[in-house]
Amino acid sequence: MSVTFAQGFSAAGVNAGISANTEKSDLAMVVNYGPSDAAAGVFTSNRFCAAPVQWSRKALMNGRIKAVVLNSGGANACTGQAGFEQSETTAVKAAHSLNVDVNDIAVCSTGLIGELLPIENVLRGVDAALLALNDDEQAGLDAAMAIMTTDTKPKTARLQGRGYRVGGMVKGSGMIAPQLATMLCVVTTDAVVDSEQLQKVLELAVNKSFNRIDVDGCMSTNDTVLLLASGASGVTPDDDEFTELIVRACSDLARQIVGDGEGSSHDIKITVSGAENEKAALACARAVAGSNLLKCAISGNDPNWGRIVSSLGTVPSHVADFDPCEVTVDINSVRVCAHGGAGIDRSEVNMDERQVDIDIDLNRGNAGSTVWTNDLTHEYVHINADYES
Amino acid sequence: MSVTFAQGFSAAGVNAGISANTEKSDLAMVVNYGPSDAAAGVFTSNRFCAAPVQWSRKALMNGRIKAVVLNSGGANACTGQAGFEQSETTAVKAAHSLNVDVNDIAVCSTGLIGELLPIENVLRGVDAALLALNDDEQAGLDAAMAIMTTDTKPKTARLQGRGYRVGGMVKGSGMIAPQLATMLCVVTTDAVVDSEQLQKVLELAVNKSFNRIDVDGCMSTNDTVLLLASGASGVTPDDDEFTELIVRACSDLARQIVGDGEGSSHDIKITVSGAENEKAALACARAVAGSNLLKCAISGNDPNWGRIVSSLGTVPSHVADFDPCEVTVDINSVRVCAHGGAGIDRSEVNMDERQVDIDIDLNRGNAGSTVWTNDLTHEYVHINADYES
Repeated sequence: MSVTFAQGFSAAGVNAGISANTEKSDLAMVVNYGPSDAAAGVFTSNRFCAAPVQWSRKALMNGRIKAVVLNSGGANACTGQAGFEQSETTAVKAAHSLNVDVNDIAVCSTGLIGELLPIENVLRGVDAALLALNDDEQAGLDAAMAIMTTDTKPKTARLQGRGYRVGGMVKGSGMIAPQLATMLCVVTTDAVVDSEQLQKVLELAVNKSFNRIDVDGCMSTNDTVLLLASGASGVTPDDDEFTELIVRACSDLARQIVGDGEGSSHDIKITVSGAENEKAALACARAVAGSNLLKCAISGNDPNWGRIVSSLGTVPSHVADFDPCEVTVDINSVRVCAHGGAGIDRSEVNMDERQVDIDIDLNRGNAGSTVWTNDLTHEYVHINADYES
Repeated sequence: MSVTFAQGFSAAGVNAGISANTEKSDLAMVVNYGPSDAAAGVFTSNRFCAAPVQWSRKALMNGRIKAVVLNSGGANACTGQAGFEQSETTAVKAAHSLNVDVNDIAVCSTGLIGELLPIENVLRGVDAALLALNDDEQAGLDAAMAIMTTDTKPKTARLQGRGYRVGGMVKGSGMIAPQLATMLCVVTTDAVVDSEQLQKVLELAVNKSFNRIDVDGCMSTNDTVLLLASGASGVTPDDDEFTELIVRACSDLARQIVGDGEGSSHDIKITVSGAENEKAALACARAVAGSNLLKCAISGNDPNWGRIVSSLGTVPSHVADFDPCEVTVDINSVRVCAHGGAGIDRSEVNMDERQVDIDIDLNRGNAGSTVWTNDLTHEYVHINADYES
């Protein structure tokens, strides 16, 4: 159902001739018919942020979004003033057709960095998308498919609150080092929530979801997560329930990105417990998630705990206090490392499942954190060595 | 010539039956016959440092090393008290045979983490190495070969000072994320230098060499660099010249590690200039060197500057101040990115050579720094997915 699961939203996905793959749909629209148009957004912290990010960040300053235009086939990043004008022109076109203010239109792009978009195709695509807009399941799916790049499947979410709904879609491709036009996400709800509250909830949800499938906290030039509320249900939700639903929607979508990570054969869930505080746990989990050596071992079905502790050992003690001699590591519930040394023989670990659970106990405190990553495969190298050619 | 190029040193490399590869020599010794036995060392900062590192760090506290025993085939890391006793037993054996103090023996190990060494084989290997000790070229080469793991060739250095010599050997395998038993290095000189001066020079040299071929500043559990001075030339060197020679020896050896990086097809030299200070330049160079996406692109002969600037954009502005719109990127002398946007078409870049030069100008100040790395290839994944099996 994607973004159209929430009432008040229509969507479309069309082939606008933007992508080098002429068979692929490459332009999506999501329109909020209200009655409310409250919105929130979280954008990449990359200093080379793309033109559509610059545009959308500015547009969102009024706390309203009536429609989002998203394209694959080009990131429109590092394209200077001409690139910004392309995003603006796209917004003007959509605003004019929908008879709304230009600052109520968000624009998202994903694809190669450094090249301008074929803007005439984009504008024709907006026309086509407007004609195709629909609030049914297929339209939501069409939109989710149009934003895919190296994704192998569309990624959508639907959650039911008490009297209101949450829908969502995301595209996410390279996950091992998500620094390139990695992620675009639109989450919709028909709950009645103002933009200030939406922003608070979205930031919390992103921090607990998309920022936990990231190797090093680095976002791409184009990463954008939008949360739109139509208010069409007429229901003002319970704060805690609403927050939980948005966190779940984002976590669900984030989990789907990991499950579709470029070329990956294993999803790796790294949970650090027994830390002094959550920040320390997160730093340890990220250090382990960032190890190419571990990722390669996992792709070879090798539960190589030495590569886990050697990554853990690179976290400075002022960031995470622990005694190496007290650390335990379980892989798929087998304690392969106890007291910082060899535990049960690693041959006991079953690596047949796609998901690999790595549980690290620092035995120092009561805080924990979980980070998801993928293994590193031949296919990842193939995809990323040949993305251009 | 390796470590035996400097007068006063003998070396050997023998097959002690430590490595799973029964064809391979796996134990090396370097003995300093003096008259001086001044020494310095730099060790991994990994909190899970290996038993031989703990031993050698302790042994070096007196500023003297008479002999070094090095083995491949096992890291003796995360092996607890039993592992430490193995390193100590090895040192005792060598000390007894050479009739020196046990604290004058350094021990280095490299290989898999988490398993004890076949200690009887190690001790028999020490006997065999003592018998094989020689000060000729072949003996130096034998030692350099015995410490190899996934290295495809021995790595040695020889430099001539005014009246004295510097020799060296190193083993280094996985370079993309050198967190696993990556590097052992012994540099020898027949100059007359005390241990305090040696330590000062070695720290500076390591910082300018081995720490610049590193993706993330993380060292393995076993990384060890030793500098031994026999004083056999009778020459007290000029401070500046000696420092320069040791820096060159370490840089030469570090460069050889990059050239033999696991599965790599390109050596990548990343130079950042125009920074406010060296620290900022180094942070930027390391951010670029750490990008799997860039490494994959380079392995596909794609001069993908978008992946360079998107990595650069992840460096916080309080770490490196620059304006993205002022940044230029040259790949193999072609300015593919100017003013933060597209420059000369990337198709103009010749990627035929093994070395790829990436020159980034932040256009903010006058400081610079260089980091070396490798590309990321199918072969890297293969080596590291199947290292165990």
